Amino acid sequence: MNVVGIDGDVLGDALARVQRDVDSVFDAFLPVPGDTRARLIEAMRYAAIGGGKRVRPLLLVSTAEMFGVDRDAALRAGTAVEAIHCYSLIHDDLPCMDDDDLRHGKATLHKTYDEATAVLAGDALHALAFEILADPETSPDPFTRSELIQTLGQASGMNGMAGGQMMDMVADEEGVEYDLSAVTRLQQLKTGALLAASVEMGAILGHIPPEGRSHLRAYARDIGLAFQIADDLLDVSGDEGKAGKALRKDAGQGKQTFVTLMGADKAREQARALIDQAIAHLGSHGREADTLRALARFIVERDR
Amino acid sequence: MNVVGIDGDVLGDALARVQRDVDSVFDAFLPVPGDTRARLIEAMRYAAIGGGKRVRPLLLVSTAEMFGVDRDAALRAGTAVEAIHCYSLIHDDLPCMDDDDLRHGKATLHKTYDEATAVLAGDALHALAFEILADPETSPDPFTRSELIQTLGQASGMNGMAGGQMMDMVADEEGVEYDLSAVTRLQQLKTGALLAASVEMGAILGHIPPEGRSHLRAYARDIGLAFQIADDLLDVSGDEGKAGKALRKDAGQGKQTFVTLMGADKAREQARALIDQAIAHLGSHGREADTLRALARFIVERDR
Repeated sequence: MNVVGIDGDVLGDALARVQRDVDSVFDAFLPVPGDTRARLIEAMRYAAIGGGKRVRPLLLVSTAEMFGVDRDAALRAGTAVEAIHCYSLIHDDLPCMDDDDLRHGKATLHKTYDEATAVLAGDALHALAFEILADPETSPDPFTRSELIQTLGQASGMNGMAGGQMMDMVADEEGVEYDLSAVTRLQQLKTGALLAASVEMGAILGHIPPEGRSHLRAYARDIGLAFQIADDLLDVSGDEGKAGKALRKDAGQGKQTFVTLMGADKAREQARALIDQAIAHLGSHGREADTLRALARFIVERDR
Repeated sequence: MNVVGIDGDVLGDALARVQRDVDSVFDAFLPVPGDTRARLIEAMRYAAIGGGKRVRPLLLVSTAEMFGVDRDAALRAGTAVEAIHCYSLIHDDLPCMDDDDLRHGKATLHKTYDEATAVLAGDALHALAFEILADPETSPDPFTRSELIQTLGQASGMNGMAGGQMMDMVADEEGVEYDLSAVTRLQQLKTGALLAASVEMGAILGHIPPEGRSHLRAYARDIGLAFQIADDLLDVSGDEGKAGKALRKDAGQGKQTFVTLMGADKAREQARALIDQAIAHLGSHGREADTLRALARFIVERDR
């Protein structure tokens, strides 16, 4: 990945490394069996391995590293978050949802296999996330495992990602026009919750008690919002080839986004302000937070 | 529910009570919010509340009661298992899967709402299951919570329910003809794994170590298989009104089932033999296992 000009090769290297590592963890958890379940596991591998920026695992691993957490443990937890992210993309891409043909530069899962396989592969990746987190190998401390699971469950369910997705669907189907505050809330649930959970889970693995995580939560909230503003901007002005998915969809649907509500210039300004604020929240940390700082900047500068 | 003639009203009362209690737990976990997520939570309530025999929660609660577990804790865990069962029914009923119009005597979720809402409500119930189990109110002991989650995750994912569902789909779509051993394996994954997890989770809540659970596992394996044979028999000779769902589907699809492979008489005999064997596994227990014994008999005698 070319992120030269942002933080030299430091972030690029960190992303490339986490991409390789997450692929390895998925590979280890998804051996293709010798029976007719093979189709399911192959579909899971197709969706989960070798695609995606892996922003969530990198957030988790970078936060965990700040607190001296074993990298393998952090990678397993990061892969669990990514399994949730992958399942949500598979289901969002379905014909009855966004009906997308392209994801990470290749055909969506239901196009390559079929809808039923896509529904089921999403469900199985969803279960895999919790299987990974509940496994004592992820953390020998059952309290930590349980806290990881509670955090990820809340972030992905009706009070998190799935809730935000429903708010989004209602807007599309019932023509509800959200104002800026509603769009902010929607995006905090749909995208922000899982990004925030990634940071939180890194701190949980580091045994940082809840009261010691508030600056990290603030960081995560800010980058989550900036991430979505950047996504909205990419939808308007991005390159489909680089994005590896269909763009220009929001305008076609007459959808309210940060860009339609604020205008592109104001939105870009706002995203940058959020990133400055996010980085300021890391003020109590030294060089060990540099990856989180670089990642914050990457989130608004990325071209895909 | 009329189960007179099986074990008098004892089991009927236990089922009716657990049905009420599981509805209450779902009700408490699913308050309808004042924002546009309301549609999601209403759909989850439609699918989860007021339907189903609640065999899995009763298995869990009855096992837990044998070991003196607090009923509220067992009910929460039982509701988590039922949330997984509900989500699987929602997704199985989708047009791209079994395309069913009727479930628990009412229109399936995607018929009442729409496919996208059904996919999402299933996903949110899936996450809810793990949220409930990770909540310290379910068990104050994090090791117990973690073990509950690992057991449910394994039973529902690619090496459990979802894996069995894929084996089933491959048979339907690719015309693979399974023999008795493959059908047994398929059903142990598709239906048996979650029934077995229910019993196992009751024992986990009772702090019974794995080596003390083998007779319960044997009981669960036997009733799981008997349950599926009974389902196959119902598909052939059941009453759609009582079943509350479409029947006669296996024959229409030319599908291999216990009934097609063994014949109805032999299958019925086999189911009864499995139930006798299941009950024999409970020999070390006294009256405290009577609900599990009655439930085993109910599983083959039920008419829905």
